[in-house]
Amino acid sequence: MENENTLRRLKTVEGHLRGVIRMVEEDAYCIDVIRQIQAIEAALNKVSSRILEDHLNSCVITAVQGSDRKERERVLKEITEVFEMSTKV
Amino acid sequence: MENENTLRRLKTVEGHLRGVIRMVEEDAYCIDVIRQIQAIEAALNKVSSRILEDHLNSCVITAVQGSDRKERERVLKEITEVFEMSTKV
Amino acid sequence: MENENTLRRLKTVEGHLRGVIRMVEEDAYCIDVIRQIQAIEAALNKVSSRILEDHLNSCVITAVQGSDRKERERVLKEITEVFEMSTKV
Amino acid sequence: MENENTLRRLKTVEGHLRGVIRMVEEDAYCIDVIRQIQAIEAALNKVSSRILEDHLNSCVITAVQGSDRKERERVLKEITEVFEMSTKV
Repeated sequence: MENENTLRRLKTVEGHLRGVIRMVEEDAYCIDVIRQIQAIEAALNKVSSRILEDHLNSCVITAVQGSDRKERERVLKEITEVFEMSTKV
Repeated sequence: MENENTLRRLKTVEGHLRGVIRMVEEDAYCIDVIRQIQAIEAALNKVSSRILEDHLNSCVITAVQGSDRKERERVLKEITEVFEMSTKV
Repeated sequence: MENENTLRRLKTVEGHLRGVIRMVEEDAYCIDVIRQIQAIEAALNKVSSRILEDHLNSCVITAVQGSDRKERERVLKEITEVFEMSTKV
Repeated sequence: MENENTLRRLKTVEGHLRGVIRMVEEDAYCIDVIRQIQAIEAALNKVSSRILEDHLNSCVITAVQGSDRKERERVLKEITEVFEMSTKV
């Protein structure tokens, strides 16, 4: 279900990216290309946030409420990792 | 306990920031100032990641294992929010 | 010439993005999808940096050495704008 | 002149950072601390953008219009470098 939403968003980004490739093929102005790439990145950030939201409300709840301590630690560690990476890209 | 660590890191950032202020007062080269500001931001990102890690391993576990559904939702929503913001700063 | 390079990089990103779409279709683990999206963003950042570098060494030099003051101001303003946006995506 | 502006902004950030340190000392809620750190980073991004703007309109113009090719290349390379770094912090 949530996958449908993510897929739709990612396919929109794919269309956007193809548009940018066309712009470069047609020698568009550099700054316009950079701006479109930044718009794609903003869209990808939104996709990631939605995926994380779904993940927190499913896998993370299951793991944290579960009895497997290692699994819980793993799942929570991953959240910190993607957060940390998000500040770098 | 974790607070000690966070405090120490934030005070280091404060010292770094004072150094940058001094650089500007002494007319340092613009690009050097920008680079130092970027170094401060990288340090702040690390502080945030550590705070989030502690938060996941304390408040989030408590809330997710607790019986208050609203509180659980609130706590998980906040994680998505700071993640989303982290892609913007 | 530089376009060739940019095109090649963007098409690699397109392939990467299609891989991520396939991952979502095949119900891959959320965190793995987020990590791949972050890798795509890192690649897009590199493309932008290369485009900016080429732009600085061509259009910006021409505009700054030219006699049209308005054009020079416009070109320099754009640099600040994409820099400012880059801190937000 | 522009320095006054930069200094004022950086001192505001310093005050903001001291406020965050106080929050941590008083055991403020983790997420609130993270949000304040993100606000500081947004403010620092603005300072960097303003410094870059001034730099483009002074040093960069001088270097690009000057006869020293090496100096011109150095100055333009720095712009790409801080842009590239800005996508990482």
